[in-house]
Amino acid sequence: MSDLLVVGSVALDSVKTPFGQGTEVLGGSATYFSYAASFFTQVRLVAVGGEDFPVEHLDLLRERQVDLTGLQRAQGRTFRWTGEYGYDLNEAKTLDTQLNVFADFSPHLPEHYRRPNFLFLANIDPRLQLEVVRQVERPRLVAMDTMNFWITGKRQALERTMGEVDALIINDGEARQLTQEPNLVKAAEAVLALGPKLVVIKRGEYGALLFAYGNFFFAPAFPLASVLDPTGAGDSFAGGFMGALARAGDIDEASLRRAVVYGSVMASFAVEDFSLRRLTRLRPEEIEERYKAFQDMVTFA
Amino acid sequence: MSDLLVVGSVALDSVKTPFGQGTEVLGGSATYFSYAASFFTQVRLVAVGGEDFPVEHLDLLRERQVDLTGLQRAQGRTFRWTGEYGYDLNEAKTLDTQLNVFADFSPHLPEHYRRPNFLFLANIDPRLQLEVVRQVERPRLVAMDTMNFWITGKRQALERTMGEVDALIINDGEARQLTQEPNLVKAAEAVLALGPKLVVIKRGEYGALLFAYGNFFFAPAFPLASVLDPTGAGDSFAGGFMGALARAGDIDEASLRRAVVYGSVMASFAVEDFSLRRLTRLRPEEIEERYKAFQDMVTFA
Repeated sequence: MSDLLVVGSVALDSVKTPFGQGTEVLGGSATYFSYAASFFTQVRLVAVGGEDFPVEHLDLLRERQVDLTGLQRAQGRTFRWTGEYGYDLNEAKTLDTQLNVFADFSPHLPEHYRRPNFLFLANIDPRLQLEVVRQVERPRLVAMDTMNFWITGKRQALERTMGEVDALIINDGEARQLTQEPNLVKAAEAVLALGPKLVVIKRGEYGALLFAYGNFFFAPAFPLASVLDPTGAGDSFAGGFMGALARAGDIDEASLRRAVVYGSVMASFAVEDFSLRRLTRLRPEEIEERYKAFQDMVTFA
Repeated sequence: MSDLLVVGSVALDSVKTPFGQGTEVLGGSATYFSYAASFFTQVRLVAVGGEDFPVEHLDLLRERQVDLTGLQRAQGRTFRWTGEYGYDLNEAKTLDTQLNVFADFSPHLPEHYRRPNFLFLANIDPRLQLEVVRQVERPRLVAMDTMNFWITGKRQALERTMGEVDALIINDGEARQLTQEPNLVKAAEAVLALGPKLVVIKRGEYGALLFAYGNFFFAPAFPLASVLDPTGAGDSFAGGFMGALARAGDIDEASLRRAVVYGSVMASFAVEDFSLRRLTRLRPEEIEERYKAFQDMVTFA
């Protein structure tokens, strides 16, 4: 089994959806990612929390054997995000973002973090993502996420980071924005021209697609009768994807395809409740059951 | 081989997309449907054209052995539709609709049309759809399409027709509008409560899903680097779907799944050029090649 390093955010989220709300609940890209990936492999986390970050949240990750040596505790308040979703759960409306301790964050990797087999740069400032890449010995696969905020605001830093990663995992709107290409096939090709060897495009309720080794692979989203909160779906997807790759220890096309499905599986659980609630109730056999259900949903002779 | 009856429109379309335009080109739901389905089975068409409907368009369908006995020629002008697409090719903006000869259309089936194995009611007034159902002896499968215009304007007639069909083939926005249900799983279930035993939901560039026999099946859309004109994609999908079912002569789950993929295949060709141009260049072996490519795109172990 390979180990998996992630740098990203731990956060306190206030979220409202048509089906309920959560105030200052556990969130953050590294949190969702780590929790989802912990079902597959040893995860090590790099992030920063504030003085007000509740200790029980750390226990929740420790119970999953997530290595928290790299989680810094800084003076000040934890990163906070406030958002809202309408009935079209595909897109969050961000109401407020408070960077707080993230404003001055400088990731510094503990010694035993520096030779990870797999590395994921969750959605943070591309300059910080690059700082992490520069501190590790060449892993088997480096993947990154990003968002519109960095695409428009830190384009140059983003392109520099993209030039040093193997995989980009973003949503379809961001892929189009990044490449200025409305056609998704051309957008995928344009991403590869920026450095990555493979790209995974997340399409919310429409599933995800992989473009790698010259081929497309499509996985649908799991059809759920009840979606309570889409927050963290993308990070849970990335956690399942990278976790499954790390468990396989391989990045051949068959492993990548399975990893996309495991990503979709983990995202489908994450949205069934607020915050990480559904993930904390998740049994490993449920993951394999849903993986099998995905297979049944797409098979034809 | 079973035969397949379709009632719908023949039209002259004026279409503008970011990639070109066509003025008074051949269009209409029954036209796209028949042409696409003709690669799979014997198609018989019921529709009405005006005095100005160009004769060469009929030749084009005759070459595909489409039975045109049921194509009426009425005094007046042919049905015309004018629409426009932006870079988001998923939705047409209708600029003008002239019903013309369709305003007084009353479908009357020739004697040899009245025992079809498969029947498709393309997107026309639900009252006319019902008139056709009432004229045939119980076929193996009756499927129908509809649109927002009838959902809001002729709800009662629509529900009456839906109560007499086996399958509904609509797009996802229409499914949500029809059922007042934003969640697609619940929307699919709500459709079945209105009568049909199965529902196919078309999602444009995101593919299509089938809900039948208690199971979901998903097929992606084919990733095309160049989409010139989405007009007729839905009707070509329906033509491939119903054509493949008629060819199989069966409606078990395996046949339905294959039919959804053949529908997606035909839609993917239709959008590669304006009007029916790509379909008229299509070789049967290309259909099977693309079917195989669909399989490659979704397979994982």
